[in-house]
Amino acid sequence: MAKRGEPRFAIGVDYGTNSVRAVIVDVADGSEVATSVYAYRGGDHGVILDPKNPNLARQNPADYVEGFYRVVRGAIRGVSRDAGFRPENVVGIGVDTTGSTPLPVDQDGLPLVFQKAFQNNPAAQAWLWKDHTAYQEASEITEKSRAMGLPYLAKCGGTYSSEWFWSKILHCRRAHPKVFQAAYAWVELADFVPGFITGNLKPGTMPRSICAAGHKAMYHEDWGGLPSEEFLAALDPDLVQVRRRYADRALPSDRQAGRLDPAVAKRVGLPPGIPVAVGAFDAHMGAVGAGIKPGTLVKIIGTSTCDMMVVPMPHELPDIPGLCGIVPHSIVPGMYGLEAGQSAVGDIFNWFVHYLAPAAYTGKGDPHENLTRQAQALKPGESGLLALDWNNGNRTILVDPLLTGLLVGQTLSTTAPEVYRALVEATAFGAWTIIRRFEEYGVAVKEVVNCGGIAEKNPFVMQLYADICNRPMKISRASQTCALGAAIFGAVAGDAYNSVAQAQQRMTGTKPTVFRPRKAAAAVYAELYSLYRQLHDAFGLPGGQGNMYEVMKHLIAIRKRVRGEK
Amino acid sequence: MAKRGEPRFAIGVDYGTNSVRAVIVDVADGSEVATSVYAYRGGDHGVILDPKNPNLARQNPADYVEGFYRVVRGAIRGVSRDAGFRPENVVGIGVDTTGSTPLPVDQDGLPLVFQKAFQNNPAAQAWLWKDHTAYQEASEITEKSRAMGLPYLAKCGGTYSSEWFWSKILHCRRAHPKVFQAAYAWVELADFVPGFITGNLKPGTMPRSICAAGHKAMYHEDWGGLPSEEFLAALDPDLVQVRRRYADRALPSDRQAGRLDPAVAKRVGLPPGIPVAVGAFDAHMGAVGAGIKPGTLVKIIGTSTCDMMVVPMPHELPDIPGLCGIVPHSIVPGMYGLEAGQSAVGDIFNWFVHYLAPAAYTGKGDPHENLTRQAQALKPGESGLLALDWNNGNRTILVDPLLTGLLVGQTLSTTAPEVYRALVEATAFGAWTIIRRFEEYGVAVKEVVNCGGIAEKNPFVMQLYADICNRPMKISRASQTCALGAAIFGAVAGDAYNSVAQAQQRMTGTKPTVFRPRKAAAAVYAELYSLYRQLHDAFGLPGGQGNMYEVMKHLIAIRKRVRGEK
Repeated sequence: MAKRGEPRFAIGVDYGTNSVRAVIVDVADGSEVATSVYAYRGGDHGVILDPKNPNLARQNPADYVEGFYRVVRGAIRGVSRDAGFRPENVVGIGVDTTGSTPLPVDQDGLPLVFQKAFQNNPAAQAWLWKDHTAYQEASEITEKSRAMGLPYLAKCGGTYSSEWFWSKILHCRRAHPKVFQAAYAWVELADFVPGFITGNLKPGTMPRSICAAGHKAMYHEDWGGLPSEEFLAALDPDLVQVRRRYADRALPSDRQAGRLDPAVAKRVGLPPGIPVAVGAFDAHMGAVGAGIKPGTLVKIIGTSTCDMMVVPMPHELPDIPGLCGIVPHSIVPGMYGLEAGQSAVGDIFNWFVHYLAPAAYTGKGDPHENLTRQAQALKPGESGLLALDWNNGNRTILVDPLLTGLLVGQTLSTTAPEVYRALVEATAFGAWTIIRRFEEYGVAVKEVVNCGGIAEKNPFVMQLYADICNRPMKISRASQTCALGAAIFGAVAGDAYNSVAQAQQRMTGTKPTVFRPRKAAAAVYAELYSLYRQLHDAFGLPGGQGNMYEVMKHLIAIRKRVRGEK
Repeated sequence: MAKRGEPRFAIGVDYGTNSVRAVIVDVADGSEVATSVYAYRGGDHGVILDPKNPNLARQNPADYVEGFYRVVRGAIRGVSRDAGFRPENVVGIGVDTTGSTPLPVDQDGLPLVFQKAFQNNPAAQAWLWKDHTAYQEASEITEKSRAMGLPYLAKCGGTYSSEWFWSKILHCRRAHPKVFQAAYAWVELADFVPGFITGNLKPGTMPRSICAAGHKAMYHEDWGGLPSEEFLAALDPDLVQVRRRYADRALPSDRQAGRLDPAVAKRVGLPPGIPVAVGAFDAHMGAVGAGIKPGTLVKIIGTSTCDMMVVPMPHELPDIPGLCGIVPHSIVPGMYGLEAGQSAVGDIFNWFVHYLAPAAYTGKGDPHENLTRQAQALKPGESGLLALDWNNGNRTILVDPLLTGLLVGQTLSTTAPEVYRALVEATAFGAWTIIRRFEEYGVAVKEVVNCGGIAEKNPFVMQLYADICNRPMKISRASQTCALGAAIFGAVAGDAYNSVAQAQQRMTGTKPTVFRPRKAAAAVYAELYSLYRQLHDAFGLPGGQGNMYEVMKHLIAIRKRVRGEK
C-alpha cells in the first residue's frame, strides 16, 4: 500500500500484433514514468504465416507469457529514481490485447500448443485477429443467423466476420478436427492474459471480457449472453460444448479478473495480490486512454482505423447499419460501446509508397515525407483526381471485404504526389462517411480526438481530415493510448478511482495543437465529397443504378477463378 | 528517264512532329535503299511552346523548307552503290505531313513568319496539329453547325476539334487580329510543302489535298466543297476571305501537285521536273504504305493511334458516329477514307513509366521492358484490375476530350506490372471498341495490319491486342510506312503504276510473324470487355444510369476552377 502523500501507479500492458508493451503511469495525472517493449519471437515479427495460404496468421502463446514477464520487469527496472516509484505503490494492472484472437486451451486453461503433441500445429496456436482462413464459415454463420431469423447480427453491422471467434472455431472444427477434439475450451487472448497472471484460468469460471464477447462472439444480454445452443448446434453440434465452457456472464474492465498470482508477481518484481482488471481489446482501452466520453469520437488511425463512441445507458439506441458493434459496457462500463472503422488507411499510403512511388520520392529520405511535401502544396481539387479507399474492402459503413480501390481523373500529367494526396483524401472521405453515419442515427459527434501513429506524426493527413470532415481534429495527449487505457482500468479495478470517467478526467487529455478546417478547402471538399459519395454508393451498394456494384464483384470473381482461389 | 532494265525509284518525304524523314524506295518492291532524317531546329525538339499556355504548340516553317533540302540530299548521298540508284531514275516524289497544321501565308504563298515584322510572332508560325488554343472556337463551330442545321459534322464524328483548320484560324482572328489581317490566306502544311517544292504556291490556285480538306476543313462534295460562306460569315465575316483563297476543288494524292522546281531540284541533287504528288496526312499515307485495302484495318500505334479503313465508292455508307472522318478519296483515290483513333496509347504507358513506376523498374535497363517482363507473366484477369484508356480523353467512339483515366480493382498488394498490364489492356479494349464500331455500321474488318513504333517493337502489346480483339494481328513489313506511302504516291503520280492498289500490291506487305489470339485468354478478355464496356458507357455517355457521366465532368470543372483555367 502507498504511504500517505506518496505517488501511486498503475500498470497497463498492451498486446499488439508484433510486440507487447508495458507502461507505468502516475495515477494522479496519467503521466508515463516507464515503458518497456518486447518483440515476439515466434514466426515473422511474431506472426506465424503459411506461404501456401495468405489467409493464415497465428501466434505462439508462449510469446504472450514470456512477453508479460519481460515488459513488466523491464518497465519497473526502467523507472527513473525521481519518479518516486515503489512496487508497493502499484494499485492495479490492466491488460489490453488484439482480438478476436482465440486460442484452444486444455482443462486447466493452458494453451493446447504447450502440449508436446501439438507444439508444431498451427491450428493449436492463437488464431490472430487478422487470420482469414475462416471466411467460408463466416458466410455460413451470417446466412444461418439470417435464415433462422435470429437477431445476433444486429449489433455487429449485419455481417459476421471471418476474423471473429465463432468463425475461427468452426473452421478449426472442420479443417483440424484433431485439434478441435483435443481442445477443452476456447478463450480470447484478452481473457487468457488476465487469467494467466491471476492464476484464474479454469474454463467455465474464469472471467470473460464483455468487450471481446460482445464485439466478436455475439454475446448480448438481450438474448441472454452467447448465441443459443440451438443456433450453434445448427452450425455444428460440437460448438455447443464451446458455449458451455464459457462463463455465463461477461464482465466490463472496471471489474477485477483477480489478483496478481504470487509466482507471477515474484518473477516481475511486484508484490502479490495486486488487482488485475478484466481484459479488453486494444482499441477500446485506447479509446478510454484518449478520453472517450459521450459526444467524443475517438479515432485510432494507423494501418487501419478504429472509430469509437460511447452512449450512456439506458438510452434508446437504434441498431446502426454498418457499425462493427454496439455492445453495452464494452468501452466504458455503463455505456454502449459503438465501434466502426476503415479497413485500410496507413496501409493504403504504404501500398502506394511500396508499389507505385517512383525513385524521385523513394531514393533519399522518407518517401511519405517526400510525397507529402509536394502533395500538401496542391490545392483541393487541383489534381482532378478522386479515389475510393477500398483497397482492403470497406468495414464501415458497407461491411464488405469484397470491394476494391478505384482511382478516377488521371491525365497524362498526373503525378505521384497528386495520386498520394487523392488516396489521403479518400481515407478522409471514408472517415467523414462514418461520422455522418453516427449522426444520421442520432449519435451526435461533438468532438473528434485522434490517436495512433498517423494522428501523432502526420499533420498533413490531420489537416485534410479537418478540412474534409469540416470540424476540428484534436490529438490525444498520450501517445500510447492503449497502454494508458489499460492502466486506467488497472487504476479503477484497484479502486484508485470510483469510475472510469473520474479516472479519465485526471489521467487523459488532448494536445494544445488542434487542426481546424479551412473554409475555402472545406467548400471544395464538400463538392468532392458528393462525387465520392456517388461513386461510393454506385460501386458499394447492391442494386444501384447502372449496376456498377457488379463491376468490383465480377473482377474479384474472375481474379479468384484465374488464380485458382476458392 | 530510267534506261530499260534499270531499277526505278520513288522518294517519300514524311514530316513528323519533331523531324522530317526522306526515304528512297525501289519502285519494283518498295524496298528502302536510303533514308535520312533532319531534326527541326525551332523551339523544343521542333515545337514552339509557351510556358504560360500549355495549349500552345507551333512550328517554324523554315524547318520545313530547310528539312526538305537536308533529307532529300542526305538520302541521295546515302544510297549504297549496289542499289543501282541514279537521280535520273526517280519517277516521283510524295509528301506527307502532320495535320491539321495550318499556316498563314502572304500573297505569294510564302509563310507570313518569313517577313521580318512577324518573325517572332508565334501566331504567324505554323499551328501544329496538337495546338489546342482554339478549344473555345471549336465548341462554337460545333454549336453553330448544329444550330444552323448544317450537315458539316456528319463526316467528322459529330464534333469539330480544337486541333482543326477553322478553329485555329478563327482563334487567330479573335486573339491575334494583326496576324490575321496581314495573312493573305491559310494553307495546310500538307499543301505548303508540295506547293513550295513545285513553285506552285499561289493561294487560290495551288493544289489542295482532299485528305487535309476533307478531314479537317469540313470539305465534302456533298455540300460543294468547303462550308458555305453563309456559315463561315456567321462565325466571323472575315472567314469568307479564307474560303475564297482556297482552291475550288481539293485533290487526291495520286494526282500531281506539280513538278520539281529547278532551283529546288538543284539544291537537292535531282533533275528538275520530277512529278510531285498532292500531299496528304502522315497517317493516311502510312495506311497506304501498310497496304490498306477494303476489309483491311490499318492501325498506326504510337503515342496515340490512328485507325483507318477504306470502302470502295460508290457505296451506301452511313455516317458512323464517333469516327474522326469519312472522306472520299482521302486515303485511296476512288474510295472513302475512314479515320478513327485513340487519343493516347503509348502516351499512357509513358505516363505510367514517367510518373508512377518505382525504382525497381526504372533503375537499370528500359523501364518498359522491365515492366513488360513481369506483366506478361500474369494471366488475363489475374490482377483483378480494369482501366479506362482515357488519360487524354477519348477520340473514337465518344469524341470527348473531357474524359479522364480510371483504374478499378486495386488491393493492398497490387503491383506496378499489374497496373502497367491493365493500362495496356485498356488500350486494347479501346481498340476493340473501334473495330466493333466499324462492324456495327457494316464495315467488316477482315484483317488488321499494325504499324508504328509499338507495333514494330512490342510483341507483348500486340499479343494482348490479338487476344482482346480475338483476331490475328499482322505487322506491316515496312517500318517507315508513312514515308513508304508517300513514295507510293510519288510512284503513282509519276506513272510508274496505274493505280495506288497496283502499286501497293508490289510495294507493301506484312511480316511473316502474325500474333494470333489465344483461346483461353480471349475467353477471359471477352468477360473483362463486358465490364470495360459497362464502365465505358456509364462514364462516357451522357444521361446514362446512375449519372456516372457527371463524375469526370465535375472533377474537370473543379480542377479548372481551382487552377484558374478558362
